[in-house]
Amino acid sequence: MADYTLRLTRTVSMARPRKQKKPDHLKRVLAALETGEPAAVRQILTELHPADIAHVLEGLPPEPRVKVWAQVDIQRMGEVLLELPEAVRADLVKLMDDQALVAAAHALDTDDIADLLPDLSDEVIAEILFALDKQDRQRLDAVLSYAEDTAGGLMNVDTITVRENITLEVVLRYLRRRGELPEHTNQLFVVDRSDRVVGALPVARLLTTEAYRRVSAVMERDVIKFAALAPDKEVAAAFERYNLVSAPVVDENNRLLGRITVDDVVDVIREEAERAVMAPAGLSEDEDILAPVVRTSRKRAIWLGINLVTAFIASAVVGLFEHTIEKVAVLAVMMPIVAGMGGNAGTQTLTVVVRGLALGVVSEANARTVLMKEFMVGALNGLLWAVTVAIVTVAWHHNYLVALALSLAMVINLVFAALSGVIIPVLVRKMGVDPAVASGVILTTVTDVVGFFAFLGLATLFLT
Amino acid sequence: MADYTLRLTRTVSMARPRKQKKPDHLKRVLAALETGEPAAVRQILTELHPADIAHVLEGLPPEPRVKVWAQVDIQRMGEVLLELPEAVRADLVKLMDDQALVAAAHALDTDDIADLLPDLSDEVIAEILFALDKQDRQRLDAVLSYAEDTAGGLMNVDTITVRENITLEVVLRYLRRRGELPEHTNQLFVVDRSDRVVGALPVARLLTTEAYRRVSAVMERDVIKFAALAPDKEVAAAFERYNLVSAPVVDENNRLLGRITVDDVVDVIREEAERAVMAPAGLSEDEDILAPVVRTSRKRAIWLGINLVTAFIASAVVGLFEHTIEKVAVLAVMMPIVAGMGGNAGTQTLTVVVRGLALGVVSEANARTVLMKEFMVGALNGLLWAVTVAIVTVAWHHNYLVALALSLAMVINLVFAALSGVIIPVLVRKMGVDPAVASGVILTTVTDVVGFFAFLGLATLFLT
Repeated sequence: MADYTLRLTRTVSMARPRKQKKPDHLKRVLAALETGEPAAVRQILTELHPADIAHVLEGLPPEPRVKVWAQVDIQRMGEVLLELPEAVRADLVKLMDDQALVAAAHALDTDDIADLLPDLSDEVIAEILFALDKQDRQRLDAVLSYAEDTAGGLMNVDTITVRENITLEVVLRYLRRRGELPEHTNQLFVVDRSDRVVGALPVARLLTTEAYRRVSAVMERDVIKFAALAPDKEVAAAFERYNLVSAPVVDENNRLLGRITVDDVVDVIREEAERAVMAPAGLSEDEDILAPVVRTSRKRAIWLGINLVTAFIASAVVGLFEHTIEKVAVLAVMMPIVAGMGGNAGTQTLTVVVRGLALGVVSEANARTVLMKEFMVGALNGLLWAVTVAIVTVAWHHNYLVALALSLAMVINLVFAALSGVIIPVLVRKMGVDPAVASGVILTTVTDVVGFFAFLGLATLFLT
Repeated sequence: MADYTLRLTRTVSMARPRKQKKPDHLKRVLAALETGEPAAVRQILTELHPADIAHVLEGLPPEPRVKVWAQVDIQRMGEVLLELPEAVRADLVKLMDDQALVAAAHALDTDDIADLLPDLSDEVIAEILFALDKQDRQRLDAVLSYAEDTAGGLMNVDTITVRENITLEVVLRYLRRRGELPEHTNQLFVVDRSDRVVGALPVARLLTTEAYRRVSAVMERDVIKFAALAPDKEVAAAFERYNLVSAPVVDENNRLLGRITVDDVVDVIREEAERAVMAPAGLSEDEDILAPVVRTSRKRAIWLGINLVTAFIASAVVGLFEHTIEKVAVLAVMMPIVAGMGGNAGTQTLTVVVRGLALGVVSEANARTVLMKEFMVGALNGLLWAVTVAIVTVAWHHNYLVALALSLAMVINLVFAALSGVIIPVLVRKMGVDPAVASGVILTTVTDVVGFFAFLGLATLFLT
């Protein structure tokens, strides 16, 4: 079934039509590896786009990964590295000698080199800089002077600028002489003598307007632009909201520094999304799913250790009521229910609020309204499930007092869960920590402690 | 601090420079609402981009939301509706009379109208269709004949096509006469007499090549194109991987149907990301954070009900050992630890595997390798924390046999958790269910049941 006819534009040698629904490159590479012929692997890799090679590498365990990496064309290594998650990239970079690294970097654009540098040693960086011409070195410097997660760190420096007093005819002639436009050039930037951005000339307008007109007459004067220090998340939000393809980056004097393009923004959005999914489980967004066992175990152990401490706290709360449980063992049977329901209800509120904070839908202006709403939802669901568990408990254990303690504890814990689900992420964020990482652990500790304490405490009151 | 100088291109009236770091439109609207002057609200809204108005509406509770909606310019209502999460959109559409809906739709492009239609009544749809001219009606039909989550459902129909035997000069003259290009036109499509796609002419090449040359001589022959039935997720992955701005959609005979642009793809990526975050907590990706309390309670109750059933299953397992707990109450104190640690470790594995499946890094080709790896990680971390809890238990409760049962149960549960974390999502996916939704509930049921059974079972063996 050719319901997905994907062919490649970039290089003719890569342009084989793919007939399968989803070509499983990994399977092919694994089969080639089994033949023991490095040339067979190399042959497959030459047909693949760098992004596809990265995908294959990511799906391989450490040992075959190294074998396959050795078969990647050195000219394309740089592009493949850029497409890999950081953890995998760092591993492969360690395997390359300095010469190979310099060669791989040399095949890249300056802004892409900047993305690779954090993984490289000082000597290699020096060599790479040495191999660049003066203009490229200056460009690289410009990008490197900003943090990775800012507009400045995200920008390319390959902008095309024009002056406002020339005609479109002149612009067209200039472009034709230039011979090529940087990728994703949907507008040229109009700057004054001091390189200050005064407007933008959309390429579409250049094509549809009579050539005798002046740039100043047809350019857009109101350009969405970004300060170099603007956080990448805000850049992504603006691109998304205003459907941008490219936008200029300026310094505090409105002087043009570079240009952000939508392909880099898509990567930011994807990374942000990965973080939102992975962080609540104590994982980083560039998890290497096939990393060596010991490394993965060590990374995960930290998270499990934190959770063990919170488990001991909850356990200590249960310990307070050991004597009650000795007398009424059925309490031990029912106690996981209250704690568990609190955890689930709280996690729902938490998930909604954490996303709301990240997307800016929840802010100071409406946090109190959200809190009130979640409180009501918690109370309503608490009542509903209190009645349900009471009926089940009476039917199962024929114990009215346990049922009463259980249902009261359910209401208390679901209300606490709802309030915690709003308050915890807001506080965590105020302390400058990503709410997605820390909120979940704190929340389940609260719902465990409150759940156990309320249920066993009430049971102690009623039954002893 | 003007570190984020955002100004708007689209309309001059919207183009006010914003001096704050992040303009809090919601705060301003809330303040205006308090004055009780509808005109004050309207004034703020006229300054805002439709996407910003949508953002404000999303952050408001039902009652003020309706009040603010009443102040949105009817010409812009369509665009605002498009930017809202489905749940909010459906609510607001219900408030509009047929005439207003037809007017709002009329201000939109045909492909955007298609996105609105699912929320509209048959009569309104008929009226909207009636108000369109023949060409637009045909365009709308073309988009509507494909499911929303396919390339066909995602496409616009505003393509510009050229023939390969004409010169660039002719193309340029045609574009100038046309007067305007559709948004995100980075390439024109080259088609033959039967509308079959034979190539693409990048706008950049049109600008940089001598005008006497023929289209056939300068066009790209290998175009990344999508079958109309290709899933939107695959379209998004291809856009991301190959850095596309636009791509043609074709039918099974390679005939051009329309064009997908990067702004719509960004929305697909964002939606997918929302789903990945929300689904594990039993939430939908277009959660309305300020929906009425009763509606939210009802939606969440279903999820809590499912979790309650699983909690009763775990509780029943504990019930099997009620007599043991009667004799050794400290077991009740320690039992949440084993279950909790299993849940945490399993969730880590699960999160990594679910993402791996979604991104295609985990596939049939390497599922067994991933399983083996996670098994080893589970065993290693099981051993580590078994020793730790044994030491703590001896120090705290001075009971060697409980410590032994606890540590053995820890190893067993962490190994089970690791295996479940891989097997459950793979099986769930095979059954055609989104692994992100159902896997978590099943996993924690397994880790609770195994954790309680192993710990209390071993303790019963050792202690009674």
